[in-house]
Amino acid sequence: MEAEKDHSNTGIVGRIWLRLKSAIGNSITGVSTVVRDVIKVGKDDPRRAVHSFKVGLALTLVSLIYYYQPLYTNFGATAMWAVMTVVVVFEFSVGATLSKGLNRGLATLLAGALGVGAHHLACLSGKIGEPILLSFFVFLQAVATTFMRFFPEIKARYDYGMLIFILTFSLVSVSGYRYDEILTMAHRRFSTIFIGGATCVIISIVVCPVWAGEDLHNLIALNMEKLGSFLEGFGDEFFRTSADTDWDTAEKRKCLRGYKSVLGSKSAEETLANFARWEPSHGEFRFRHPWKQYLELGALTRECAYRIEALDGYLNVNVQVPAVAREKIEGACREVSSEAAKALKEMAVSVRTMTRQAALADTDHLLVDCHGAVKDLKALLKASQWKETDLLAAVPLFTVTSLLIDVVECTEKIAESVQELSSLANFREVDPTSSPEKPAPLAGRKTKASKPDVECPHPHVVVPVHDMTLENGRASYPAE
Amino acid sequence: MEAEKDHSNTGIVGRIWLRLKSAIGNSITGVSTVVRDVIKVGKDDPRRAVHSFKVGLALTLVSLIYYYQPLYTNFGATAMWAVMTVVVVFEFSVGATLSKGLNRGLATLLAGALGVGAHHLACLSGKIGEPILLSFFVFLQAVATTFMRFFPEIKARYDYGMLIFILTFSLVSVSGYRYDEILTMAHRRFSTIFIGGATCVIISIVVCPVWAGEDLHNLIALNMEKLGSFLEGFGDEFFRTSADTDWDTAEKRKCLRGYKSVLGSKSAEETLANFARWEPSHGEFRFRHPWKQYLELGALTRECAYRIEALDGYLNVNVQVPAVAREKIEGACREVSSEAAKALKEMAVSVRTMTRQAALADTDHLLVDCHGAVKDLKALLKASQWKETDLLAAVPLFTVTSLLIDVVECTEKIAESVQELSSLANFREVDPTSSPEKPAPLAGRKTKASKPDVECPHPHVVVPVHDMTLENGRASYPAE
Repeated sequence: MEAEKDHSNTGIVGRIWLRLKSAIGNSITGVSTVVRDVIKVGKDDPRRAVHSFKVGLALTLVSLIYYYQPLYTNFGATAMWAVMTVVVVFEFSVGATLSKGLNRGLATLLAGALGVGAHHLACLSGKIGEPILLSFFVFLQAVATTFMRFFPEIKARYDYGMLIFILTFSLVSVSGYRYDEILTMAHRRFSTIFIGGATCVIISIVVCPVWAGEDLHNLIALNMEKLGSFLEGFGDEFFRTSADTDWDTAEKRKCLRGYKSVLGSKSAEETLANFARWEPSHGEFRFRHPWKQYLELGALTRECAYRIEALDGYLNVNVQVPAVAREKIEGACREVSSEAAKALKEMAVSVRTMTRQAALADTDHLLVDCHGAVKDLKALLKASQWKETDLLAAVPLFTVTSLLIDVVECTEKIAESVQELSSLANFREVDPTSSPEKPAPLAGRKTKASKPDVECPHPHVVVPVHDMTLENGRASYPAE
Repeated sequence: MEAEKDHSNTGIVGRIWLRLKSAIGNSITGVSTVVRDVIKVGKDDPRRAVHSFKVGLALTLVSLIYYYQPLYTNFGATAMWAVMTVVVVFEFSVGATLSKGLNRGLATLLAGALGVGAHHLACLSGKIGEPILLSFFVFLQAVATTFMRFFPEIKARYDYGMLIFILTFSLVSVSGYRYDEILTMAHRRFSTIFIGGATCVIISIVVCPVWAGEDLHNLIALNMEKLGSFLEGFGDEFFRTSADTDWDTAEKRKCLRGYKSVLGSKSAEETLANFARWEPSHGEFRFRHPWKQYLELGALTRECAYRIEALDGYLNVNVQVPAVAREKIEGACREVSSEAAKALKEMAVSVRTMTRQAALADTDHLLVDCHGAVKDLKALLKASQWKETDLLAAVPLFTVTSLLIDVVECTEKIAESVQELSSLANFREVDPTSSPEKPAPLAGRKTKASKPDVECPHPHVVVPVHDMTLENGRASYPAE
């Protein structure tokens, strides 16, 4: 009996202890998961942590208006507009911050003036007519401005300004019904918004600036590099013998598939280009840098990526290419693929470093090896040595060949676009004195410029997973 | 002399008249351009005009707080928060409005409470310590919350709430330094925001609601239909004789290329799905409708579109297919293409109308004709009748064949996904009593359901350019 009681006692204590232990364990696991996530998000792009501190700094600075008596006397409760402006306007990149700040400032100025006008007009119609007329004005401008927000050109650049226009006009004109000092109010609203906006813009430019233009520039170069990495590894992967282990294959494929992000990078590129247009001259980028050309280059890269996606389909399926056909064509296919890869990677370096090799002045020269390889491949197909081959089994091989030739065509278009960009953006000309005939190996410059974060075990495939540019493009610049 | 003066006089009057005329002409042209644009934007999606009126209505209703004395006595100047909320929260779709309204409301409640707490804590540290401690709190929460906004899961659903959290916490805690009635302020802020948010939500649900879920549903079906339209016309276009005029070709191609929008519809789909999750049960859509499955179906459709993009490349190039090879394979290729088109269009109708034919219960049945066609094509390739053919010239033909087979494979995957969707979303079963063996022709139901806005002159190609769904998805739901 006693033993049982003792047991049940230990049982209760034990159970409580167990629960406590599991609760502590759970919370430790929870906390460690959060910590791991935080470290991951911060490590993916350290600029995020810096941005958070910048926002904190701007907010603290602006809230000084409340604490410092002379300033507070001036602005009173409207000081909160400054705080509000900082929270809403401060964006990840300089371009986004400038775009929102200018939109907000100009819209406030314009709508404030119109609101004061509307108020005075409404005042003329007497005590009963005033609210009716004011309501009518507010309704009318809200309908008109909301509708204007659907125009694609306005939506792209001035959407936030439109929102603030509706807001300020409504506030100023309607508040006028209760306050007589409406001019003071409009004036204070504008000044506080100006203070908040200026604080954001200055801090975002002065403290570790994040330039949307630079992100776009790097994204475009990175995307070309990713296509190059796929093509570099494609030959090995398509013609691989079964000696490789499955793990190797899976790992390699994952590395090859870096190009997948290119397929969906359109909206990120457009957003970045939109913000880049607002940015002042910085580094090697002038105020009117040819951002449009980057978009064109991006579109061509994406077109190439679609072809590569079709090629990738032939890695998935376990294609049983007859050995005879394979042997005939393998060398030429590998050659085309790796030459296209080389061209793409060289162009990526050229864009990233904003240089062009004198020897690569015309696109033909850049792709000369590529064209040679395609010619060899076509000659192989023409030869009449295919008669004994099982055609059905060889079809995937022909398709891959044909798609590779398509990819080379896309690469040509990309090369032309890079050419145009290099002349529009005045890329520095670099003369490789060592070997004037053939372009010097770019490996040294490349490692300096591209900084790949992850190196694949595959000797041929280096996929820099410096992807936050893309993610930021899509995620960190909402049009608030 | 007089004649000359007279002439110069007429000259001045004439010139003024000419300038005036050209100015009037210019402004008339300008106005007519604007009017045309307005009509176009409104016609593209009449819901835009309705949305504008809804915003005007909500704003006018909320501004009544200012005019109606009893209400104004209650809220005072904080009434402007209600106006502000309406401007910022009212979005195009119910889901977006609900998402922003709930985010704003909950974040205000939470941050208000924390702000009051921070204020009381800071008060304990005396007159000098208070601003220092307050600044520290504001800085800390701004840094932490801004950083949290970079987490992808938070970004997707609660980004706006995070923004409002920073805003409200800063406002409430900092204002506390100047006002003693901080609780009243926090309370008023919450009430006015609640009034504004509720007005938006109610109007957006009651007056001609725009459901993001429905838009997503239609977009997914439309995308499948577009792929179907391409495949339907592909056979004619690829194997066309040179008898067609160039104009015809250009026009047809434009119609065929409706599928291009599918390539970039990922972000629109994700945005719509994100908003759809917030929407209550409406029409045939339950609260927990399987929106994730739509995203999966959309991804598969896009994968198919990538293959089709590669196919489209073979329409661009002036491929000189040898007549012998062509004749052999043309029939089978056309068959595969049109069977895949039929399957895609039938699935599109099935999704759009949320029905499934009893006869189509398993995917194999739906694609049975398709598989037959592929088999025929493969048999043709296997035959040894190709020995005399110039292989190089026939390579494009083989590639098209191979890509068509790929497309059929993608279609199979799409069919499986549609199948899964139909069971998850409980599609109504329709039993075609007329012919239980073969599915009844869906033409009648299709015209009712799909409402194509533009009919191409090509008898085979019907491309409904009801594209505003996509545009709205990307453009009208910014995460403000």
